Amino acid sequence: MFVAEVVGNVWGTRKHCSLCDKRLLLVRAIDPLSEKPLGDAVMAVEYGTGAGPGSIVLVMDEGGSARSVLKDEMAPIRTAVVGIVDSVVSGGKVKTYD
Amino acid sequence: MFVAEVVGNVWGTRKHCSLCDKRLLLVRAIDPLSEKPLGDAVMAVEYGTGAGPGSIVLVMDEGGSARSVLKDEMAPIRTAVVGIVDSVVSGGKVKTYD
Amino acid sequence: MFVAEVVGNVWGTRKHCSLCDKRLLLVRAIDPLSEKPLGDAVMAVEYGTGAGPGSIVLVMDEGGSARSVLKDEMAPIRTAVVGIVDSVVSGGKVKTYD
Amino acid sequence: MFVAEVVGNVWGTRKHCSLCDKRLLLVRAIDPLSEKPLGDAVMAVEYGTGAGPGSIVLVMDEGGSARSVLKDEMAPIRTAVVGIVDSVVSGGKVKTYD
Amino acid sequence: MFVAEVVGNVWGTRKHCSLCDKRLLLVRAIDPLSEKPLGDAVMAVEYGTGAGPGSIVLVMDEGGSARSVLKDEMAPIRTAVVGIVDSVVSGGKVKTYD
Repeated sequence: MFVAEVVGNVWGTRKHCSLCDKRLLLVRAIDPLSEKPLGDAVMAVEYGTGAGPGSIVLVMDEGGSARSVLKDEMAPIRTAVVGIVDSVVSGGKVKTYD
Repeated sequence: MFVAEVVGNVWGTRKHCSLCDKRLLLVRAIDPLSEKPLGDAVMAVEYGTGAGPGSIVLVMDEGGSARSVLKDEMAPIRTAVVGIVDSVVSGGKVKTYD
Repeated sequence: MFVAEVVGNVWGTRKHCSLCDKRLLLVRAIDPLSEKPLGDAVMAVEYGTGAGPGSIVLVMDEGGSARSVLKDEMAPIRTAVVGIVDSVVSGGKVKTYD
Repeated sequence: MFVAEVVGNVWGTRKHCSLCDKRLLLVRAIDPLSEKPLGDAVMAVEYGTGAGPGSIVLVMDEGGSARSVLKDEMAPIRTAVVGIVDSVVSGGKVKTYD
Repeated sequence: MFVAEVVGNVWGTRKHCSLCDKRLLLVRAIDPLSEKPLGDAVMAVEYGTGAGPGSIVLVMDEGGSARSVLKDEMAPIRTAVVGIVDSVVSGGKVKTYD
């Protein structure tokens, strides 16, 4: 589980059927206070939070969790956006996202 | 499984319902003797240990384990705080936390 | 889940029987906009997307997902090609693949 | 699965009940021939091999395996010591541990 | 799933009973075309491919897969050798192993 910024969208027409009606986002882990990017962008499935490019989100990177969120036990999915971050408090500093 | 320091809290109102009543902590792995940080902060769910910012904790980073701790087989959760560290002994040195 | 380029094929005659009729591809994660390679090539099973060397693909790296795609719960498989990427939009730039 | 040296013990009184009667070891992956440390120390549960600080051990880092070793399907455990290494042979060299 | 070279054997007498009759190999991931080593050696269980030191092999690093290959749902195993590589084709070059 990590905090990430949505940095783009991915489209593909030929893909496994259980992915056909899902939005695929590019997300990149960030340090939640400095918003500094950490590592490379990965793909994540969006399930109804309304997240889009620029959103700061909670990402779940485990297959069982991702399939549970999508209510599809057979979907070939590992990474899902499960929430939108409002604020982070650390070391006396508060970072608010809108 | 690793030893980490709690470094902050994360809040979000729009998130998967199984996360609604859970505390989300930012934790960062540490070298348990030197307390030197190792790597980036990740999110972890707190289940009742009372851990908060500054606590040195046992973190479990596997979905099946985390869901078992929370007694919710469908929760989209991978990382959970499962204990609070009292002390570490290594190479004849004892490090005590309070 | 990540975006990758197919960079080769792997052949082996002595292998676990559930892999006998599967195509094994070498895939390398890329930054989807710059196409810069990220990390080392790994093996992935192809399930019917028609992907081959040069294709830009969606890769799923989780065992339960990969077995579900192949409809074989006992197959020793972790990584599978689950789609072909048409385009990526990020930071106002559009990258189209053909 | 990797070869590691036991480098310490971890104690905590407030922890998930399924961990209460388990020994928690700090283990650090090593190159089995040079004994050079690889990466950071992680926590592992000991199940009856008698391993302690200084032991060279076989470590299993997967939740299903670790829970099976401990015969507790609900334990929040990912990493377990599953054996003690006697010797390693590589490139014509033999390294024996005692 | 990755391509690796077998670089050694590991022996231990005190280990979990489900590992007692299994061969434990040390394998190191390689770039399949250059044979350049990638990262550290890990342990893998051999299931009947006949692989030994010097063999170029297909390695599966996921618990469910490894247990399925060994037909032992309770074995504490994550990494298994599931095939022997004959050749790799990439970028117009063919690399054959014997």
